[in-house]
Amino acid sequence: MATVKLWSDEEAAAVPAVKAVFDDLRATRKSEFVNNFWRALANQPALLERTWASIKQVMVAPGALDPLTKELIYIAVSMANSCSYCVHSHTAAARAKGLSNAQYAEFLAVVGMAAETNALANALQIPVDREFLVP
Amino acid sequence: MATVKLWSDEEAAAVPAVKAVFDDLRATRKSEFVNNFWRALANQPALLERTWASIKQVMVAPGALDPLTKELIYIAVSMANSCSYCVHSHTAAARAKGLSNAQYAEFLAVVGMAAETNALANALQIPVDREFLVP
Amino acid sequence: MATVKLWSDEEAAAVPAVKAVFDDLRATRKSEFVNNFWRALANQPALLERTWASIKQVMVAPGALDPLTKELIYIAVSMANSCSYCVHSHTAAARAKGLSNAQYAEFLAVVGMAAETNALANALQIPVDREFLVP
Amino acid sequence: MATVKLWSDEEAAAVPAVKAVFDDLRATRKSEFVNNFWRALANQPALLERTWASIKQVMVAPGALDPLTKELIYIAVSMANSCSYCVHSHTAAARAKGLSNAQYAEFLAVVGMAAETNALANALQIPVDREFLVP
Amino acid sequence: MATVKLWSDEEAAAVPAVKAVFDDLRATRKSEFVNNFWRALANQPALLERTWASIKQVMVAPGALDPLTKELIYIAVSMANSCSYCVHSHTAAARAKGLSNAQYAEFLAVVGMAAETNALANALQIPVDREFLVP
Amino acid sequence: MATVKLWSDEEAAAVPAVKAVFDDLRATRKSEFVNNFWRALANQPALLERTWASIKQVMVAPGALDPLTKELIYIAVSMANSCSYCVHSHTAAARAKGLSNAQYAEFLAVVGMAAETNALANALQIPVDREFLVP
Repeated sequence: MATVKLWSDEEAAAVPAVKAVFDDLRATRKSEFVNNFWRALANQPALLERTWASIKQVMVAPGALDPLTKELIYIAVSMANSCSYCVHSHTAAARAKGLSNAQYAEFLAVVGMAAETNALANALQIPVDREFLVP
Repeated sequence: MATVKLWSDEEAAAVPAVKAVFDDLRATRKSEFVNNFWRALANQPALLERTWASIKQVMVAPGALDPLTKELIYIAVSMANSCSYCVHSHTAAARAKGLSNAQYAEFLAVVGMAAETNALANALQIPVDREFLVP
Repeated sequence: MATVKLWSDEEAAAVPAVKAVFDDLRATRKSEFVNNFWRALANQPALLERTWASIKQVMVAPGALDPLTKELIYIAVSMANSCSYCVHSHTAAARAKGLSNAQYAEFLAVVGMAAETNALANALQIPVDREFLVP
Repeated sequence: MATVKLWSDEEAAAVPAVKAVFDDLRATRKSEFVNNFWRALANQPALLERTWASIKQVMVAPGALDPLTKELIYIAVSMANSCSYCVHSHTAAARAKGLSNAQYAEFLAVVGMAAETNALANALQIPVDREFLVP
Repeated sequence: MATVKLWSDEEAAAVPAVKAVFDDLRATRKSEFVNNFWRALANQPALLERTWASIKQVMVAPGALDPLTKELIYIAVSMANSCSYCVHSHTAAARAKGLSNAQYAEFLAVVGMAAETNALANALQIPVDREFLVP
Repeated sequence: MATVKLWSDEEAAAVPAVKAVFDDLRATRKSEFVNNFWRALANQPALLERTWASIKQVMVAPGALDPLTKELIYIAVSMANSCSYCVHSHTAAARAKGLSNAQYAEFLAVVGMAAETNALANALQIPVDREFLVP
C-alpha cells in the first residue's frame, strides 16, 4: 500500500548508506527487527540517515524526560495528526518500555480531554489570559 | 475576540450553577485566578459543569501518570490541533508544575520529531508491520 | 496581517470582474457589508469568481438542509481546521440566521464530544464494524 | 488492528462496570448491536463509563438541535480530524436517523466548501472583521 | 469501505449528467481509467459536475505553475490532512507527470521539515515578525 | 505572546552555540535579519543547531526541486497545519524568491481544491484504486 517499495534486507545490504543505518538501528535497539518505516525511507538514503540520526538523538539518547514519557508524547502527536502507522509503532514501543494498562487508560483520558477542550477553545475563539504570557 | 461573552465574577455570582463551578475551581486549585476558558464556558452551564467534572477527574485527581507528564501530553495534542489558547494555558500549567528548561527543550524536540515522521509516514502511506498488531 | 492587500471599494470598482462579484454579493445578501475574505480574494479575480459562485450555490441557494444547519456544519469543519477567521465569520452568520443560545450550547457539546471520541478512536485504531459498511 | 483487545460479550459479562454500560447501551438504543468503539473502551472501565455518560447526555437525550443535525455535525468534525472509524459509524447513524440522499449530497457540498475556504483563509491569513466580534 | 456505492460504467451510462462527466474525464485525460473518487461522487451529480469543472480549471488547464509542481502541492496538503486516498492518487499522478526519485526524495524532506517546524512554531506560539507583514 | 523569551542579538552573542548559528544564518542568507523563529529556538541550543542544519540542507542547498517550488510546498503544509507563523514567514520567503501574483493565485486555487477534495474523500471513505498501488 506504500507509495514506494519497502526494501528487503538483501536490497539494503547492496547499498552501503542504507546498510549502515540498518546495522546501527539493529545494534542500537538490540533487535533484528527493522520496521517498515525504515524500509520505506531506504529509497531516500540521505533522508534515511538524517531521520535516524535525529531519532537516535531525540528518542534513544538519555535526556531530561524518561523514555516512556517521550513515547506517550509521540503517540499523542501521532494520534492528533491521524498517523495510523505512527500510532501503532509508538504504542508498541511504549508497551515495550513498560506502559501499564492503568497508565494507558489515563493517557487515553488525557488525549480525549485535550481534544475536547481544544475543540471548545477553537470554537469559542477564547483570548489568551495575560497571566499566561511570558514577560 | 471570543464568539461569546466572558463572564465576570459578578455575573458568575448571579447564577448558582456557574458560581458553584467557579468556587470549586478556586478551592481545588487553591488560587483566585479563573482563566478565560471557564469564563467563556459559563454561557453554557451544563457544558461548564460536565467539562470541569471531567478535567478534575482526569487532570487533577491522582492517577497512574504524574501531573507534569499529563500536562506535556496535553500540550502535544493542543499543538497538533493548533489550539493557541490551550498551548498557552497548559504550557503555563506545566511550568507551574515544575517543568524545567531542559525538559521543555526535550519536549520540543520530541513533538517536532513526531510531526516530521508523521508527515513522512502519511506521505509514504507505510503499511503497519504485523509485529505491531495486538494478538 | 494578511499575506495580501485587502481591497477597498474604490479599488474593487476599478476592476470589472471584482466589481461584479462585490455587486452580486451585496445584492444577494441584501447588505452593504463586504467582509475581508472577499477583499483578500479580490487579488485573484478568477478564484474570487469561482469561490463566490460555489458559495452562492452551496450556502445561499435553497436546498435539502436548512440554512442554519449548514452554518453549524461549516463552523464544525472550520473549528477542526483551526480556521480562526472562518469560525468568527460563520458563527456571526449562524447568529444572523437565528442560532439560539441553547442551540449554540448544544452545538459546542457535540463538537467537543466528537473531537474527544475522534481522539480515542484514532489512538485506539479501532477497526470499522462490518455493520457500518455499505453493501 | 486495534491497539487493544476488543471485548466479547462473554468478557464484558464478567466485569460488572463494563456489563452495566453494555446493558444500558443496548437498552437505550433498543438494539443488541454493540459496536467496536465500546468493545475497545471496555479495557478502561472508568473511561468507558464517562464517555458513554457524555454521549448519552449529548447525543441521545432530547435537546435544542434535532438528532440528525447532531449526527451531521459529528461527521463533519470526524472528517476534518480524519477519523475513519468515526466517519463510518456516524454516517451509518445518520442514515439510521433518516438522512436522505439529497441531504447527504448537500452535506458533502458544505464540508467540501468549508474545507476549501478554510484553506484559503488560512493561507491568506485574513484578519477578522470588526463586525464579527462579540461586543 | 466507502460510505456510498461506487458507480460502475453501466450505472453511469444510465444517468446523462454522470455520463457526461465520465466522458469528458476520459477525453480530457486520454485514458479509459475512471478512478473511485469520481465513481463515489457520481451519487451526487451536481457535486460531481462542480468538482470536475474546478479540477479541470485548476489542475488540467495550463497556468502559471507547471503541472508537476501543482501535484506536489496537492500531495503536501493531502498528507497534512491525512487523506490516504488523495495521497495515493496524486502521488500516482505526479509519477505519471514525470516525478523523479530525486525530486520525490526532496519533496519528502521538505514536507517533513515543514511539519517539524510547524510543530515547533505552534508549540512556541512565536509572534509574526513585522518584516513579514504586507504593508 | 511566545511561550519562551525571544533572544536579542546581545543575548545570542553571549552563548557561543547560539552565536554560531546566528552568524551562519546571516552569512548563508546574506542578510542581517534573524526572524523570531530562531530567536525562540535559541532557548534550546541543541534543537536550534539541529533545526538550522536540517533547514540549510533541505531548503538552502541546491537540489532536485527549485527553491520557489520548495517554498510553495512548505506553505501548503503550514496552511494545512494552521501554522500562522510559518505561513507568514514562508509566503514572505516565496515572494523574495520571485513568486509572481499569477503563481500565487494558482497556488491558492490548488490548495483550496486539494482541501476540498480531501474533505470529500475523507467523508466518503473512498477505497484506494488498485491502479494507484506500487507493485
